[in-house]
Amino acid sequence: MSGRADIAVVGGGPAGLSAAVNALARGKTVRLLSSGKTNLKHAENVDNYLGFYKITGGELMDRFEEHAAALGISAEKGKVLNVMPLGGYFMLNFAGQIVEASAVVLAIGTAKAREIAGEAEFLGRGVSYCATCDGMLYRGRKAVVWGLAPDSAEEANFLHSIGVQVVFAAKGERPENLKPEIPFIPEAVSEIVGEGSVSAVRTGGDLIETDGVFILRNAIAPTTLVPGLETQNGFIRVDSRMQTNIPGLFAAGDCTGAPLQIAKAVGEGLIAAQAAAKYIDSLGK
Amino acid sequence: MSGRADIAVVGGGPAGLSAAVNALARGKTVRLLSSGKTNLKHAENVDNYLGFYKITGGELMDRFEEHAAALGISAEKGKVLNVMPLGGYFMLNFAGQIVEASAVVLAIGTAKAREIAGEAEFLGRGVSYCATCDGMLYRGRKAVVWGLAPDSAEEANFLHSIGVQVVFAAKGERPENLKPEIPFIPEAVSEIVGEGSVSAVRTGGDLIETDGVFILRNAIAPTTLVPGLETQNGFIRVDSRMQTNIPGLFAAGDCTGAPLQIAKAVGEGLIAAQAAAKYIDSLGK
Repeated sequence: MSGRADIAVVGGGPAGLSAAVNALARGKTVRLLSSGKTNLKHAENVDNYLGFYKITGGELMDRFEEHAAALGISAEKGKVLNVMPLGGYFMLNFAGQIVEASAVVLAIGTAKAREIAGEAEFLGRGVSYCATCDGMLYRGRKAVVWGLAPDSAEEANFLHSIGVQVVFAAKGERPENLKPEIPFIPEAVSEIVGEGSVSAVRTGGDLIETDGVFILRNAIAPTTLVPGLETQNGFIRVDSRMQTNIPGLFAAGDCTGAPLQIAKAVGEGLIAAQAAAKYIDSLGK
Repeated sequence: MSGRADIAVVGGGPAGLSAAVNALARGKTVRLLSSGKTNLKHAENVDNYLGFYKITGGELMDRFEEHAAALGISAEKGKVLNVMPLGGYFMLNFAGQIVEASAVVLAIGTAKAREIAGEAEFLGRGVSYCATCDGMLYRGRKAVVWGLAPDSAEEANFLHSIGVQVVFAAKGERPENLKPEIPFIPEAVSEIVGEGSVSAVRTGGDLIETDGVFILRNAIAPTTLVPGLETQNGFIRVDSRMQTNIPGLFAAGDCTGAPLQIAKAVGEGLIAAQAAAKYIDSLGK
């Protein structure tokens, strides 16, 4: 789909799928952007989403995705790195590709990401979340890749292939698919230091000099995703219509807080989509 | 089940079933009290409750009821006429039978009932909602039955059988199953008049003298059901945990307001049940 969508839904779990299904039910065009990671897939048994019992999380997600697919909705896979409110519409950085939408529903689940010292300070000045987007800036220079997502080694390989001097840091074993030319540090990055821009990162007890650091998490904190978004105890603050503090931006599911349950997520996805549709109608589009 | 239940759920639609399923999932005992009337049963096609599509409302309700039944929950059929908060527990008048519970979830759907003039004023002083409960009070006396529910004629027949001088009022045709001895007025009751207690009701242009009036609706207004319950535009006022203004009393589904949709109802049923379970734990039970 090209051009501006009515509603961009960020997240392909129960809340996002429910939002997409209900956006469509209200006659809106919708793009469903999903990282493909859903906690539900790992649930062994689900008994408390009305209509299904003795079902695994994986089977239930399959049913949810079948439902969406039957209505013509399929998720575009990739990470949304940034959502920019531009007064009347939104621009999303979808793995380096630009997506425009009149309204956005965030259904990004729980952000397990905890920001580390220096991360917010040096964002855009040495700290990046996206190898595809920012890799070329580090060509011929040094960059630490902190691998927290399953595909991090591939991203490090990509950076290496375009001429970045990559060091890969991650807790645990060296990933099998990491290129042998890339040095590996079996530690998390605990701090980012510099003056004006990144000069080094701390891993374990050591300071490693570097021009940049790619933090490759599955989850991005909501406040990092959307500048100016208000949260409460780490969850996105919404009103009873799932409206955030930013006009046209709605949220649904685990990212709005407890209970972190399917039925709540699905219900909120519906409410958010209907409110987003109403918001778009109020724009006179 | 006898003794006091942890949670009484009033209403057997999607919100009530979800509340019952989730009360059980939290290890609470539950009684599900249902009038057996659910708007969903009449929906021709449901496409926007995640996991099901191209399904009729009746089929979806069957699936919901099967789910509850598989967990050992079955609705007890009958009308809840009154919910009395007694400080620490609730007493419910369930078609004349007393049900006790530590917490209550109201999932009563939309109350289409509009109160008529004099109804609130004379409630308990000539106005009754329950033939079984109050019939004997009118033995040998006159009572108008205003039939707004499908089973109203049976209730009128019952009152006649115990010696009440019944007049049956209802818009439209005389019900086939109404005993021929019972006079029929093809009009709604528009006003209840009296001094201290009921002396007459207005139907069409006429005043009909009577000692009492039985108003037999499907729906009972929430404020009639629970004295002191706060509403907003006719819907039950709840916070984000589905707590009403009365401690231990929760509400879920259409009765809390728009959107009147299955996914919202199911999500709120979950939230209400979990909040009710937490409330009970806080009582130290």
